[in-house]
This record gives sequence, C-alpha cells and structure tokens, in this order.
Amino acid sequence: MVIDCHGHYTTAPKELQAFRDSQIAALKDPTTSRPKALASLTDDQLRESVQPQLKFQNDRGTDVTIFSPRASAMAHHIGDAEISLDWSRHCNDLVHRVCTLFPKNFVGVCQLPQTPSAPLANCIDELERCVNELGFIGCNLNPDPSGGHWTAPPLTDRFWYPFYEKMVELDVPAMVHVSASCNSNFHATGAHYLNADTTAFMQFLQADLFTDFPTLRMIIPHGGGAVPYHWGRYRGLAQDMKRPPLTDLIRNNVFFDTCVYHQPGIDLLVKVVPADNILFGSEMVGAVRGIDPQTGHYYDDTKRYVDSAAISGADRQKLLEGNTRKVYPRINRLLPAAS
Amino acid sequence: MVIDCHGHYTTAPKELQAFRDSQIAALKDPTTSRPKALASLTDDQLRESVQPQLKFQNDRGTDVTIFSPRASAMAHHIGDAEISLDWSRHCNDLVHRVCTLFPKNFVGVCQLPQTPSAPLANCIDELERCVNELGFIGCNLNPDPSGGHWTAPPLTDRFWYPFYEKMVELDVPAMVHVSASCNSNFHATGAHYLNADTTAFMQFLQADLFTDFPTLRMIIPHGGGAVPYHWGRYRGLAQDMKRPPLTDLIRNNVFFDTCVYHQPGIDLLVKVVPADNILFGSEMVGAVRGIDPQTGHYYDDTKRYVDSAAISGADRQKLLEGNTRKVYPRINRLLPAAS
Repeated sequence: MVIDCHGHYTTAPKELQAFRDSQIAALKDPTTSRPKALASLTDDQLRESVQPQLKFQNDRGTDVTIFSPRASAMAHHIGDAEISLDWSRHCNDLVHRVCTLFPKNFVGVCQLPQTPSAPLANCIDELERCVNELGFIGCNLNPDPSGGHWTAPPLTDRFWYPFYEKMVELDVPAMVHVSASCNSNFHATGAHYLNADTTAFMQFLQADLFTDFPTLRMIIPHGGGAVPYHWGRYRGLAQDMKRPPLTDLIRNNVFFDTCVYHQPGIDLLVKVVPADNILFGSEMVGAVRGIDPQTGHYYDDTKRYVDSAAISGADRQKLLEGNTRKVYPRINRLLPAAS
Repeated sequence: MVIDCHGHYTTAPKELQAFRDSQIAALKDPTTSRPKALASLTDDQLRESVQPQLKFQNDRGTDVTIFSPRASAMAHHIGDAEISLDWSRHCNDLVHRVCTLFPKNFVGVCQLPQTPSAPLANCIDELERCVNELGFIGCNLNPDPSGGHWTAPPLTDRFWYPFYEKMVELDVPAMVHVSASCNSNFHATGAHYLNADTTAFMQFLQADLFTDFPTLRMIIPHGGGAVPYHWGRYRGLAQDMKRPPLTDLIRNNVFFDTCVYHQPGIDLLVKVVPADNILFGSEMVGAVRGIDPQTGHYYDDTKRYVDSAAISGADRQKLLEGNTRKVYPRINRLLPAAS
C-alpha cells in the first residue's frame, strides 16, 4: 500500500471560497453580517470535486492520501479567533465528508483555528473534535499565523506546550505548514513555505522540545525546505553548538516528506536523511501543476522519483507506507493492515 | 588561480567590537556620547588577525578571497542612518587596510549603511567611496535591514532602482546577504541566511528586474538557500506562472556560490545549476567552524567538494576563477590575468 502523507483539498467546490469571500466582505464592511453557513453541497458535488486526486492516485499507483484543507487558504492572519474558528470548522467538516465518501482513498488531517493575536485559541478544542468526532489522524500547525510577519513565538517556546500535550494525549502528529503570505517579500509556495520548513527545523535543533515531549512528532513538508541540501551545515552547526548529532535529534520526532519535484532533489534527500525519517508525499493537487518537459511527467509525481531512487526495497517500503503508519498511528484504525 | 568569492572579516581585532559596543551603549543611554573613532590598530594587529584565513588559503589551495565585513555584525536594525553609516565606514576601512596589507590574498567588498527606516540612505555614496577610493569590487546588499521582520520592499521593487543604477554604472555586483536576526524565530546562520537566499531568488523569478537592468548581477550565497534542492519546484513554478525558463532567467544576472558544506549538496548544485552561474565560495572563517567527523576535514573546506564533483575541467575552471572574474570584473584590475 502506498500512503501519500501530504494532500490538500485544493479542488473544493467554489461554494467554499464564496463562503470565505463573504466572511472577508463582512470583515471589511461591519454593516454586512457574517455568513452563518456554507451553501449546501451535495455528495455528488464532493465526489466530482476530488476526481483529479482519484485519477492521480490511480495513474501514479498510490492508494490513500492524508488529506487536509487547502493550506494557502487557511490564512490565519485574516480576521479574529471567531472568524478563524468558523472557517476552520467548515473546511474540516468538508474534508471529513470527502473522507466519508471515499474511506479507502482519503484520511483526514485538520486545519487549526489559529489567529495571530492568540495562536492557540480554540486549537485544542478543534483538534479534539476532529480526532475524536471526525476520525482525523493529525493536524497542520502554522508556525506563523501572521502570514509572513513571524510574530508568534518559536515552535519550541513553552507557549505551544498546552497544544503539544493534547497532541501527545491523542497520539497525533503535526505537519508544520504555513499558509498564504501577506508580506510582499514572500511568495507563498516559492518562498514562505520553504522558509518555514527551514526555520522550524533550526528551532528544533536549538531547543530541547523532544526531551520535554519524547513522543511528539512533527513532519516538515516540502522535503524539509533547505535542510537536506544543507545537511552538512546543520551537522556542523549542531556540533559547534554542542547539540546532539542530527540523526539522534530527529530520530523519533522529526520527519520530512518527499515533496521535492525533481530526481536530483529526491536522490539527495534519501542519501543524507535516514530512511526512517522520510514519508512519501506529493502535495498533489498543489503548488506545481504542470508537466516537466524534461521528463514528460508531472513535476509533482514524486512517486516516480522515489521509485527511481537508489534505496533498498525495505527502505522504499518504509517511505511509502511503514513510516507513515508509525508517525500517524491512528491511520491503522482506518486502513487494512500493512501490505 | 582559485578565487573564493565569499569571505567575511570575522576575525577582526576586538577593538572593532568594542567600538560597536560603545555605539550601542550610547544608543541605550543618551547621556553617553557616541564614539568618534575606533581605537588605533597597528598594521601588525591586522596582519595577525587574518592569519587563520591565510593559513586556510594555503592549506586548501585557494589564492584570493573576496573579503567583506562580518555579515552578522552589520546589524542594520540597530540605531539609525547615522549609526549605520559610521559603523559601515569603520568596517569597510578596516577591510581596505587588510586588502592593502595583503593585496594578493584579499580583495574588498563593502558593507552598506542600510537602515530599516531608509534602507537606501547613504548607500550610493558609500558604494561610490568604496569602489572609487578604496578599490572595492562589489557590495553586500541586505534585503531585510530590519533583521528578521522583513519590512523593506522586495528587491525587485522600484524602491531599490537608484542603487541598482549606481551598481550598473560602476559595474559592480551585489551579494544578497542578510545580517543578524532580531526575530527569535530565526537563527541567523541556520535559518535567516538561507531563508533570505530562497526569498531573493523567488523575487527575481517573479519580476522583470533584469529586463530593466540587463547588466545587473546578483550573487545568492549559501549555495542559493533552498533553491537548487527545489530546482524542479522552481522550474515548475516558472512554467505555471508563464515566466521564462530558469536558465534563461538567471543567465547573465543571478549566480550561486558553493557555500554548501557536504559533498551531496555540492553534487546536486553542479548537477542542476548551469556551470556559468556558480562561483566558488567557502564563507571561511564563518558560519560553521568544526571538522566533519565523517570526512576528517573542515565542513567549510568547499574546495574539496568542488574538486570531487563530477564536472569537466573547463567547468571547474569557470567555478574556481572564470565566472568570478566575469561577475566581479573590477577584480581583473587587481589580479594577474587568468591562469
């Protein structure tokens, strides 16, 4: 079985964006009332909306996608805690409906109702709701709810600890994933996403978060940002700073996905990062949608790169399935036993 | 001849930091007067201070280092335009003295007196002074003088154009290099530096800066941040955004150095980035100072990685010397003709 750990619901029916647009319009014009509910969507509309993902799964030979709301649309910097909660619940509920319609193809991960002024407000409650009531198996945690101004404390700050306690209690991991950027310096998918990945890794390297939470698990997406390419730099920084060796530091706690869209990048990733710390992911349908003229295949068809990488069959099995079952253990309640 | 395009004066005599400390103390306590001048330093003190660099040049088989003030100490976010100018002039003058003492070993590049409230104030004057009076061949341009808050406009904004006009007139390039971070999210050398590299590249990809300035040249240090590792992502983003292919976009304008501290990283860099767009650099004595236990050699001994990389002799010659002579043409006035 092949599990894709990184897919967002980027193809939701347009009614979802219309709801969001009304939310934003009400923010700008206080005489307008906030929308109460999303327009009703039929199951057929939802089935239709995920045909691209189902086709890619079939064409590429992947089985199930860990599925979360569209990351760039989380936009935690818009509005307040109430707006963020309302938007998050609608997005999570819609992902839940898709997972219920296609239980073999999608497993849910939730967006959190973060907000810059109170990044943890409502997050614990929404995580509990999504895990206990909707059967979700993890969450996406935004290290920068301000959308490119980086006003929240580092992820290793005690500020975040109450949320981590709940993650540990529920035995769910977080993918560290920013959203849209409202800072004109940062293109979202071309800079902000990768910067956040790099930033989070260095925060983890500097502090003792995983001593405090030995079972806390974080996935750094987009192949770990700049980290594997600069693995020597990080090994050297850890050494200069008298921190543990990187492989010890990340062993049971930090994982990278394979959202790196060319063969040399994946080759580097599997060469320097231990096989136990890599999870197969594609981010489809997502950041890059075109076909690579050099290969004739979609840039984000990362399964091809993993298939061609110089790793053992046992390691490939870890990447494609085994590691994800360990990092997101609740998936085992929803899927048949390992193939 | 081997030219290292990326070296900072990280080993300056302690009197330089004492001057800076007095500047900062005067900022905090307005009853204290700002220091007027650096304590006098003898030529012998300066000669002594660069012995580590001279030893590394000798041990590693490099000849000359393009030398600039310590990047993390630029700290443009501290104080105002006057403080920044005073600090920059002192740092540049000291680099000039080292270059004068060892004209075969060091060629100068200047720090700019940027400041968050007016990032270009005094920069044109100081660039002219350093190039025309001190014989410097380029500058380090900080895309984020705020030190991690990213409040300046993107590098492609017309705001920066007057400075670019002067760069073009003087025929000098800029290395895009941030300084210390005062945002607790970003470790300087482990996150802020690499994020800035990634950010700058994406800014260049999005805009028509090099159509407006066909001869403007920018070096993105630290191997280009996350960019080469994600070369497929950037090729795909350029394609989706109907931008030119990356190789066309960067051809005469954007260059990466080789400050990547392990063999797999350098192997990736030379595989995906055209040989014409890579300049040898080590950042010694700099971000990572230890010896890699896996190799028994210094992490930042990047010449070893370049020597071992699977590239042709002609391409290696471009990386080690030829490209740098093209990108920093004023170096040809100071060094013997190409070997």
